[in-house]
Amino acid sequence: MRSDNRNPGELRKIVLQAGINQYAEGSVLICSGSTRVHCTASVDEKVPPFLRGSGSGWVTAEYDMLPRATKERNQRERGRLGGNGRSLEIQRLIGRSLRSVCSLVQLGERTIILDCDVLQADGGTRTAAITGSWLAMMIAMNHLVKERRLRQIPVRAQAAAISVGLVDNKVLLDLSYEEDSRAQVDLNVVMTDTREIIEIQGSGERSTFSRVQMDSMLDLAEEGLTEIFSRQMEMLRDLQVGWQSASPASI
Amino acid sequence: MRSDNRNPGELRKIVLQAGINQYAEGSVLICSGSTRVHCTASVDEKVPPFLRGSGSGWVTAEYDMLPRATKERNQRERGRLGGNGRSLEIQRLIGRSLRSVCSLVQLGERTIILDCDVLQADGGTRTAAITGSWLAMMIAMNHLVKERRLRQIPVRAQAAAISVGLVDNKVLLDLSYEEDSRAQVDLNVVMTDTREIIEIQGSGERSTFSRVQMDSMLDLAEEGLTEIFSRQMEMLRDLQVGWQSASPASI
Amino acid sequence: MRSDNRNPGELRKIVLQAGINQYAEGSVLICSGSTRVHCTASVDEKVPPFLRGSGSGWVTAEYDMLPRATKERNQRERGRLGGNGRSLEIQRLIGRSLRSVCSLVQLGERTIILDCDVLQADGGTRTAAITGSWLAMMIAMNHLVKERRLRQIPVRAQAAAISVGLVDNKVLLDLSYEEDSRAQVDLNVVMTDTREIIEIQGSGERSTFSRVQMDSMLDLAEEGLTEIFSRQMEMLRDLQVGWQSASPASI
Amino acid sequence: MRSDNRNPGELRKIVLQAGINQYAEGSVLICSGSTRVHCTASVDEKVPPFLRGSGSGWVTAEYDMLPRATKERNQRERGRLGGNGRSLEIQRLIGRSLRSVCSLVQLGERTIILDCDVLQADGGTRTAAITGSWLAMMIAMNHLVKERRLRQIPVRAQAAAISVGLVDNKVLLDLSYEEDSRAQVDLNVVMTDTREIIEIQGSGERSTFSRVQMDSMLDLAEEGLTEIFSRQMEMLRDLQVGWQSASPASI
Amino acid sequence: MRSDNRNPGELRKIVLQAGINQYAEGSVLICSGSTRVHCTASVDEKVPPFLRGSGSGWVTAEYDMLPRATKERNQRERGRLGGNGRSLEIQRLIGRSLRSVCSLVQLGERTIILDCDVLQADGGTRTAAITGSWLAMMIAMNHLVKERRLRQIPVRAQAAAISVGLVDNKVLLDLSYEEDSRAQVDLNVVMTDTREIIEIQGSGERSTFSRVQMDSMLDLAEEGLTEIFSRQMEMLRDLQVGWQSASPASI
Amino acid sequence: MRSDNRNPGELRKIVLQAGINQYAEGSVLICSGSTRVHCTASVDEKVPPFLRGSGSGWVTAEYDMLPRATKERNQRERGRLGGNGRSLEIQRLIGRSLRSVCSLVQLGERTIILDCDVLQADGGTRTAAITGSWLAMMIAMNHLVKERRLRQIPVRAQAAAISVGLVDNKVLLDLSYEEDSRAQVDLNVVMTDTREIIEIQGSGERSTFSRVQMDSMLDLAEEGLTEIFSRQMEMLRDLQVGWQSASPASI
Repeated sequence: MRSDNRNPGELRKIVLQAGINQYAEGSVLICSGSTRVHCTASVDEKVPPFLRGSGSGWVTAEYDMLPRATKERNQRERGRLGGNGRSLEIQRLIGRSLRSVCSLVQLGERTIILDCDVLQADGGTRTAAITGSWLAMMIAMNHLVKERRLRQIPVRAQAAAISVGLVDNKVLLDLSYEEDSRAQVDLNVVMTDTREIIEIQGSGERSTFSRVQMDSMLDLAEEGLTEIFSRQMEMLRDLQVGWQSASPASI
Repeated sequence: MRSDNRNPGELRKIVLQAGINQYAEGSVLICSGSTRVHCTASVDEKVPPFLRGSGSGWVTAEYDMLPRATKERNQRERGRLGGNGRSLEIQRLIGRSLRSVCSLVQLGERTIILDCDVLQADGGTRTAAITGSWLAMMIAMNHLVKERRLRQIPVRAQAAAISVGLVDNKVLLDLSYEEDSRAQVDLNVVMTDTREIIEIQGSGERSTFSRVQMDSMLDLAEEGLTEIFSRQMEMLRDLQVGWQSASPASI
Repeated sequence: MRSDNRNPGELRKIVLQAGINQYAEGSVLICSGSTRVHCTASVDEKVPPFLRGSGSGWVTAEYDMLPRATKERNQRERGRLGGNGRSLEIQRLIGRSLRSVCSLVQLGERTIILDCDVLQADGGTRTAAITGSWLAMMIAMNHLVKERRLRQIPVRAQAAAISVGLVDNKVLLDLSYEEDSRAQVDLNVVMTDTREIIEIQGSGERSTFSRVQMDSMLDLAEEGLTEIFSRQMEMLRDLQVGWQSASPASI
Repeated sequence: MRSDNRNPGELRKIVLQAGINQYAEGSVLICSGSTRVHCTASVDEKVPPFLRGSGSGWVTAEYDMLPRATKERNQRERGRLGGNGRSLEIQRLIGRSLRSVCSLVQLGERTIILDCDVLQADGGTRTAAITGSWLAMMIAMNHLVKERRLRQIPVRAQAAAISVGLVDNKVLLDLSYEEDSRAQVDLNVVMTDTREIIEIQGSGERSTFSRVQMDSMLDLAEEGLTEIFSRQMEMLRDLQVGWQSASPASI
Repeated sequence: MRSDNRNPGELRKIVLQAGINQYAEGSVLICSGSTRVHCTASVDEKVPPFLRGSGSGWVTAEYDMLPRATKERNQRERGRLGGNGRSLEIQRLIGRSLRSVCSLVQLGERTIILDCDVLQADGGTRTAAITGSWLAMMIAMNHLVKERRLRQIPVRAQAAAISVGLVDNKVLLDLSYEEDSRAQVDLNVVMTDTREIIEIQGSGERSTFSRVQMDSMLDLAEEGLTEIFSRQMEMLRDLQVGWQSASPASI
Repeated sequence: MRSDNRNPGELRKIVLQAGINQYAEGSVLICSGSTRVHCTASVDEKVPPFLRGSGSGWVTAEYDMLPRATKERNQRERGRLGGNGRSLEIQRLIGRSLRSVCSLVQLGERTIILDCDVLQADGGTRTAAITGSWLAMMIAMNHLVKERRLRQIPVRAQAAAISVGLVDNKVLLDLSYEEDSRAQVDLNVVMTDTREIIEIQGSGERSTFSRVQMDSMLDLAEEGLTEIFSRQMEMLRDLQVGWQSASPASI
């Protein structure tokens, strides 16, 4: 039994709330258990220098934590030289994951910036950030469609993420911080609703793992993601965002 | 009439919510109209170098904004060299204001760090941050009393703040962002519940102002603060924090 | 009696010296007792990005100290990340104060940069910087008039500043460093020669203060500023700068 | 056929050269085709603050590129604020990978720092850095054994890495820069000689991939790594480093 | 004839003023024509880490310019990443030059920090800084002797510097900024009063120079330095600093 | 006798290797004894802002060390604020030296960037960097000639450098690190093959030196440079670079 009485393959309670910021073109607060990530999507009618004149748009992300998101207070990154490797790594992952399901050419020469700020961290902040910022991005794109700046939402598929790990030799879904810090192996999986892998990152700092173990972990991740994809679509329906995955999850 | 139908001497609606963070010793979300500031109070059992061995404690603050707290997205401060003068100035003000009502010697050699992160900004973020972080600090100190690390809350008086300004030659209380950007004069007042001034900062970038005008502005600020002090005490009662101002507001 | 035998309402000796730099369009060394601030005004025929094409000019300031301006040597700011909050706060104050008496539209699309470098610090460096840099700015603008780049000096009023404080429960004018470090309350007042307030900043880190005490402090500040405004005009006459305050001090 | 006439499952030519630096306790130049990474292992008899007094050692890595390692010259990282996300991400990966095969407790309270500097980059720099720095680390540890500062080399298994990808819908081993920039999917695999996975990072920025495709890529990676593990052991034998994998590759 | 009517071998007018800062242990303003350098010597009873416990002291320098020391205003160095190569190079030269005539062991475990701040720059700021800061250092050391913290001034010889150059194929002493910017060759010479070379830096960015030309330049530099050494000794006599060069200049 | 059995006037063994980088327009590895400097010359078809539209080109250099180039590992410069004074000073010297023998107007509006990265340091890294990067620059310019982007190599003379010093009162050529750290005087000489001085930097931190000693050192430096100039020309002949010094060394 897990410390919060979950079964090995059980997700934590997910709460999604849209419209948490009145200025951002899209915004979603995602709570996964005690983990809370504040996601806003901002539209900028410019692209980075390397894309100017290319006709292609860009999707990028920034990730940060409030100082007291964690049990021990962390120093703010501002004024820290050399950057925070972990934050940079996570925001690169979020950006890549969202770009993989977008048509940047259909988006046109504009940038969507996802700001993922962790208000409270109890494990799984990067995966929650991906799941939540996909929604914030969709809302922002829907806003562009409504304003007739886009013809349709230039997104091919849903993108969401979940962690899975090996703790005390058992495969567990959606690790809490306490489980994550005891885990032998930690695997983050980003997938589309069509069961395609967008990104997989598995690491066994304390241990190594076999391909058989990896397969079990991937099976469990897929199960958890099925539920998350439903939750994403539910919110889009509630917000009356008209969009369908190119290869819908129901197939 | 003001754009949100308020009278000149009317505060915006204030919503105070405690316990918004499970790790921080004290936490309060303060909403004043559309302005929302996330305040956490963290206890650190150390003091800055200049106080080591002095027997005295310290209270300090950090202030920042999420990138999309504002109408236009701002760049994150991390990685910005030379700092953000405005943020540094505001966090110095918050720290001074709270220290002025504390007995740092009674606090003992520990530091209370107030993190004020603006989730949404519509004017008055610095004054909301002072009002909200006084509460977060009280909750954190009450926690120390409950854990018997302090005998009593080492605070002499309530501290709260409000802005008042001269807009179109009229004195208005609690300026929204739109009013603030049209204001001839902007006056921020930090006071105790005993009507003592902690800090006063008045500035007329577009204009200058007479002492008569300053007096009218201060009168209005005092009125607004009376209501705010009641709201602070109401929350402390709800949370069953046993404390009384040395010279209570009711006198 | 004060340590330097001054009366409570007595200014320190002020010495003003113009032309201390051969390159700057305007330059003034202001000595107030042992405090010495080196002020240069530089004209730049550009404006910051947010004003380009607006037809409006800009006035801005930078404030710094030589490392040994103080009793204990300070580290240079260069290479210090995160900036020096105190310096940034002071230079923002100087810039705002000077802009409040200028017509930026009459100045046209150019910037006047005031560099205030403290050679020696004995309290009151920010107020001396404002008084001295108003003069340096006037000299630079007069230079532009002489070169026919401006028709007349686009300044409406004199601007000067003084500190006043509550020390041992007595109201004192123009605090020295030693008095400032013992002060219960420290109030900096920036005014025009027409007795209008440009900026007021009062802070009681060790204590709080009543409105009655604030009024006494403001009375004393006004008295001190009367003398300072005369000294400013005296220098302008000596330098044959033809200019008159819109609402002259003599009224 | 690939541009350099390799078969899909063929590695580029690997050249390993030890002793390329006379000061470092261990040093290896690894060339994989045109990719050249200069690896040094330095022993520091200290550990980072979080390990002091724990009895445990530390293994960490830094990764950088010479400015002209690439086709277009890159700016040096020195003096770049905010860090280079890519470099930080890679050096974190190298450190984690090496630590996963070490017994940090047997290493004792000392740090091994691997400096991986890319002299020339033609794809696969991070995987070459892992393969090469495992060797440099082994040589440095052997040096500590020879100096009787360690009883035996505290390493359980070989660690090496290779990239594999999906290019034009074909699975290719050991991508060159040109292949990598056309790849739909890029998978980096770090394994032990016992076929255990240390780290797996798969990303499909341009595309997504199925689990069947991932399995084919992993199969090819394992094949390639078998050859690389032999090359590592060959160098250790040449250098007369007495060590055996706890679970040798031959099993 | 030179633009200021000097002969090729003529120094600009030198004005030396001591006691320009009331806090520094030693302070000298050196004016050489229009060049003005503000030098303070601060005593710190600590040494840098690499000298702790060695019994040896340290002499170091910092060099900076006020923003408007030059014809065109320069940006302040604070907040500039990567440092200013020119300033760092000059302050390293000043430090080396002064250390070469000191007995650091006799100085004991303390540091003398020379702050050389250029108020106005018209060529020769680095040489004026050396000449002036040798005097500031002597005054500070004399102060230590008077306070019985040193038995005697631990300095073996005078140190001073001058520039000499090749302009329009003529050898000129003590170049002004205008001459320096036209010079084919620029040679800075730091010497002792005993005609020993401390440092020589000759550079011909626009041109190269023969050893014969270098000899003529050195001859002229020696002549100029003779006068400067007299001026230094004159000031020491005026200040009643009891000290004699180990090998006095008069020999 | 010197520790490596060299005569006082004997150079260390020089090994020059071209083509060590496949991307750079010119590249040379220079080994001088145990000192190894990796030099690449990159052509950029832009010039710095101050030269835009001037018709003139630019030659500049960057100098850095790998962390373990030295006996003790050094921290990387990346993320170090304020820069490394020594590196900046050296790269400025390299840039000035190479520019002094180029016709920047003939080069046209393009920049040649020399990256000098020290792989191993045993004294004389800055002089080796000059000697090696002159060659790398020549190879890059020859490449431009071959591509018909230049009519001929816009270089007037060879440039090379060597160190010479006073160790135990003896004049020694080409100091190793161990000799350099014992040296009373250290003199770096950059010359053309026509025996003209480009740059001379002599410093006696531990001691001072007479003009007679300087002359002996210069004589020895000239002898050493004669050999180095031959080695440079030998490489150019091997690479079939058609170029002759305006005033050839043989005169």
